[in-house]
Amino acid sequence: MKFPTNVLLGLTLSLVSFPASADEGMWLFNDLPKAQLAEKYGFTPSEAWAEHVMRASVRFNSGGSASFVSSRGLVLTNHHVGADTLQKLSTAERNLLEDGFLAKTPAEELPAPDLELNQLVSIEDVTERVAAAVKEGMPAAEAMAARRAVTAKIEKESLEATGLRSDVVTLYGGARHHLYRYKKYTDVRLVWAPESGIAFFGGDADNFEYPRYCLDVCIFRVYEDGKPARIEHFLKVSAGGVSDGEVVFVSGNPGRTQRIFTVAALKYQRDHYLPFVLDYLRRREILWQQFGLEGEEQARRAKDDLLGIQNGRKALGGRLQGLQTPAFFAAKEAEEKELRQRIAGDEKLKQRGAAWQMIEDVQKRRKAALGRTGEFAGALYDIAQQLVFLSIEDQKPSGERLREYRDSARESLLQGLFSPAPIYPDKAKAELADSMALFMERRGGDDELVAKALDGKSPETRAAELIDGTRLTDVDYRKQLVSGGRRAIEASDDPMIRLARLMEPEARRLRQEQEELAEIEQQAYSQVADVLFAIHGTDTYPDATFTLRLAFGPVAGYRESGSVIPPWTTIGGAFEHEKRHGAKDPWILPKSWHAARSRLNPETPMDFVCTADIIGGNSGSPVVNREAELVGVVFDGNIQSLTANYFYSDEQARAVSVDVRLILEALRKVYNAGGLAGELGR
Amino acid sequence: MKFPTNVLLGLTLSLVSFPASADEGMWLFNDLPKAQLAEKYGFTPSEAWAEHVMRASVRFNSGGSASFVSSRGLVLTNHHVGADTLQKLSTAERNLLEDGFLAKTPAEELPAPDLELNQLVSIEDVTERVAAAVKEGMPAAEAMAARRAVTAKIEKESLEATGLRSDVVTLYGGARHHLYRYKKYTDVRLVWAPESGIAFFGGDADNFEYPRYCLDVCIFRVYEDGKPARIEHFLKVSAGGVSDGEVVFVSGNPGRTQRIFTVAALKYQRDHYLPFVLDYLRRREILWQQFGLEGEEQARRAKDDLLGIQNGRKALGGRLQGLQTPAFFAAKEAEEKELRQRIAGDEKLKQRGAAWQMIEDVQKRRKAALGRTGEFAGALYDIAQQLVFLSIEDQKPSGERLREYRDSARESLLQGLFSPAPIYPDKAKAELADSMALFMERRGGDDELVAKALDGKSPETRAAELIDGTRLTDVDYRKQLVSGGRRAIEASDDPMIRLARLMEPEARRLRQEQEELAEIEQQAYSQVADVLFAIHGTDTYPDATFTLRLAFGPVAGYRESGSVIPPWTTIGGAFEHEKRHGAKDPWILPKSWHAARSRLNPETPMDFVCTADIIGGNSGSPVVNREAELVGVVFDGNIQSLTANYFYSDEQARAVSVDVRLILEALRKVYNAGGLAGELGR
Repeated sequence: MKFPTNVLLGLTLSLVSFPASADEGMWLFNDLPKAQLAEKYGFTPSEAWAEHVMRASVRFNSGGSASFVSSRGLVLTNHHVGADTLQKLSTAERNLLEDGFLAKTPAEELPAPDLELNQLVSIEDVTERVAAAVKEGMPAAEAMAARRAVTAKIEKESLEATGLRSDVVTLYGGARHHLYRYKKYTDVRLVWAPESGIAFFGGDADNFEYPRYCLDVCIFRVYEDGKPARIEHFLKVSAGGVSDGEVVFVSGNPGRTQRIFTVAALKYQRDHYLPFVLDYLRRREILWQQFGLEGEEQARRAKDDLLGIQNGRKALGGRLQGLQTPAFFAAKEAEEKELRQRIAGDEKLKQRGAAWQMIEDVQKRRKAALGRTGEFAGALYDIAQQLVFLSIEDQKPSGERLREYRDSARESLLQGLFSPAPIYPDKAKAELADSMALFMERRGGDDELVAKALDGKSPETRAAELIDGTRLTDVDYRKQLVSGGRRAIEASDDPMIRLARLMEPEARRLRQEQEELAEIEQQAYSQVADVLFAIHGTDTYPDATFTLRLAFGPVAGYRESGSVIPPWTTIGGAFEHEKRHGAKDPWILPKSWHAARSRLNPETPMDFVCTADIIGGNSGSPVVNREAELVGVVFDGNIQSLTANYFYSDEQARAVSVDVRLILEALRKVYNAGGLAGELGR
Repeated sequence: MKFPTNVLLGLTLSLVSFPASADEGMWLFNDLPKAQLAEKYGFTPSEAWAEHVMRASVRFNSGGSASFVSSRGLVLTNHHVGADTLQKLSTAERNLLEDGFLAKTPAEELPAPDLELNQLVSIEDVTERVAAAVKEGMPAAEAMAARRAVTAKIEKESLEATGLRSDVVTLYGGARHHLYRYKKYTDVRLVWAPESGIAFFGGDADNFEYPRYCLDVCIFRVYEDGKPARIEHFLKVSAGGVSDGEVVFVSGNPGRTQRIFTVAALKYQRDHYLPFVLDYLRRREILWQQFGLEGEEQARRAKDDLLGIQNGRKALGGRLQGLQTPAFFAAKEAEEKELRQRIAGDEKLKQRGAAWQMIEDVQKRRKAALGRTGEFAGALYDIAQQLVFLSIEDQKPSGERLREYRDSARESLLQGLFSPAPIYPDKAKAELADSMALFMERRGGDDELVAKALDGKSPETRAAELIDGTRLTDVDYRKQLVSGGRRAIEASDDPMIRLARLMEPEARRLRQEQEELAEIEQQAYSQVADVLFAIHGTDTYPDATFTLRLAFGPVAGYRESGSVIPPWTTIGGAFEHEKRHGAKDPWILPKSWHAARSRLNPETPMDFVCTADIIGGNSGSPVVNREAELVGVVFDGNIQSLTANYFYSDEQARAVSVDVRLILEALRKVYNAGGLAGELGR
């Protein structure tokens, strides 16, 4: 599965890239490649088409994509995008993640504790206004402050004028700034989810593999004023589905790509960043595996985290493998060398040449900073840290605050802070203890801040004392601290708040350091982008930024190890796949599927692949045809697509989608949900 | 389970320690604590008692302990000590590790491909001769060479004079050197092993926990001249078993302890070495987990490695937790401070004070060297590397060679090199590819040696090419290369041999660096030992060195989280334990046990705990009573014992043993092996 983007530990920059292959590109909705589409596919998306697809697309702010699929607010996304909510709605007695859920009536639909869904409504270019605020020659810290201030101002003005969530998005490595306005939905309710056994059939073993046999979808409904929201732009369902070779369009929110990272930046990824993060992911994977061994309920509590970590480990491992392929690097080096030689000989561009060295210097500083941290892990510590930061940030004007504490982001921040989602003390202790042990490992046991944070105790003892002692599990107490402001925080004797206060200066210092590095990179990459615009023109797309993009390409199989992988799998194939693996975990189809087997048409398409250019964050993206009808839902890329962060290829890399015909067949024949199936597209 | 010591990634030094608690100590057989035993337990081991127990004890050279238990060569050890052989004797069709084995007749006993068992026959103090060779003021490299030369000479003379395996063992951090002579057994055959489901009941979850319910034993037989060996010293079996509070003796080969490491050395362990090794172990754990996902046969192939890694990860994690407990460090620091103040005020000892600084300096160099490596992982690379080193070392006199290539070690070396144990190409590729990727991560993708080793390919591609291309799976080809000497190695176009030749200078350089550091530490610690001898006297035991030691203490339960943990578990308890965990993996008792349940006496003792001072390497150690009768077999320590590397405690830390009464009951009633049961002790 593609991972929700917020946990991808992604990089912070958006970069420009130039399509080398025909179907490459994660295109901006206000700058679609019309000429290219017309030439290659004889299709020119009209303004109305683009507007409709854009407004029918939904972003899960927690990291993921989705679409409106009915006039009464139904939202279709991946099971693994909804998994966080399924986990939060589950208890020891009712495991929705594992066993699935169906609301038979609207009254049975389950409110998600903290989802925020965004519908993109408009895009406005504000590059000039942002650029005017940052003067040439400003030191990084000052430039950063100026950029932060103007950005906050633009967003606040827009919010006040329109009432819409307003985000300034940095594109092309800083060369462009666009203002995205979203309609927000925060009353989101669970309608239907299948069992994880079919949503994630084949588990970690099949993840990123193809052929696949997954029904990785679930359905929510957005409400307004306590009633199902009226949705104007929703996707109709394609009656006949899609056919082999037909071009399809993917409208979703790819997380982060690094397509035109300089060679120095890629080397930092290869030799330092990715190995470092992978060590961390393996540590967390073992942590949750071990926690799950303590009992069935513990395994349930850790399940969603474990799946996420395993997915990240496999995805980043694939990226690292790509970077460890010398041929890839040789090509990048040759390309960069040629470009720099060309600049050196160009009077106008010459001065931009320094950007590459700036980027290389930043990598050295990034390397030195790897592993430095001023915070601990786990929901309760996160809450404490946010409360402490909020109390301090709120004493400054909005434009001077850290980004997530600015006025225009307040609603989203508080929704998370006041989430009633369950927090399990045993799990919180394991997580906090491990992060305290890691903090000690990284700074050394003699470090002064380590000694203060641990208060003379071992990580396990200290974590247990903190979790047992904190009142932050109580949402009312959090509210009380927010409304009490800085005075309440300073007066609080809650041990977790005290710990977060102790850590705050270090956390702030390290964050400042990171943001300054990002600012320097942004300035450098915007020069790189200028060079590329000057040489290649501007008919291109920026690197992904977890904002809405359109990708496209035909449904197409591929060759692997000498055999041809067909584009489709079928329901019949799923049963065969189960049998081939001896019906052992993770290849056990749910009981509901075995019970329904005789009713199911084994020829029904299950999953299919296409060449559209996607990445983590695209999970749940609708796949539509030329008529803007829904034909599928993206849920994964194959193993060959894992290097898509750095380059696009249509040789073997494929996006993997659930076929809409499977969704209809399963709803009707497995889940006895004909009513819901009938509502799709209406 | 306690881990075989050779994979414990242990430290290389043996250190002196001074018993603080009554039952502390891993005592030398030529220096038993007679006064202490007489005083506390009213028992004085006679020379004959000591000689008998010593000669009835067996060392698995692959890492583990055991005992002779019949006059016709039966050897009793842990299932997890025999696991490596069980794995090597298994095939896709016959999984001995999982399903167990019983030879009904001697003809059915299965020859182990590469086991070497050692029986300690004598100990001789050669301190003066070694000390005389190393002159004061010699630089580390020179001192190391001198020590290596005199050691090789002593061993060779002894081997030639006695025909016995002869090892000079460095004790008390270098203050003493003893010559150990062993009778070797290399024709070792498998007689009986239970299913892993009962040997390792509760799996990784129960590992290092107590109460436990494991039959972690198996039985081999040693042969001489094709017939069962005649054994003079073997253990009788205690008829009544042992009782609560009774003192017992553990005779085995503890691997490595670090009891009087200086504070600086412990800090290096805490802040650098253990975190580093744990990252590596987690990486390997995930590697084998992922490999096992590819299919049942792959899971079988990786099983033994996976178990070993999981065990090591848990054991080292426990050690790190101990070191991350500030109270532990405060005590160590106070102790060291007092000692050094005392030395500073003592005219005679004053000059020894520099030793602590020497040790601290070495830690800095160790830290800088962490992760530097000149070799890859996997059986085939190991073989290639040994062949290349052997061809070079053989051109030097024995005393100048690296230790494992000296004349007196030749037989053991060749037994390993020519092992017919199966090597699976798919597993070998996964292991080699991962170690090549790691090599690239550690040195960086631009490193020249990385480029040469990978030959311009990705780690996966290169590993596949090497494994597919090498002929080293063929034992005859290995023999040919050994007999052909350096010329044959240099002429070989085998790609794995070529790779090992490419790597040899770097591997040698790094090894030399490590050995020089060890030499400096040895000199420093022998001064520390002198100081301790001067202050506390010499009535003590040295740190563990994977040589035979005697530990002792009563059978005793303990208190944990307010409850009393009784010393015994029973067969009935095992069935209850299974039920409590819903009979889910890893808590599934074998079918044979369910079939035999009605015949089994549920009151039969299963496992028991005692306070004897043990560590990894003690696995399989016989536990005997005052009459030198077998009462149990050590197979684990509880979680509280994991800090035994650094200190002994009898508050909660316990050695966990299989009760001999369980072995007899199971052989007779579960395994239909009454004949074998009857042979035990006769």
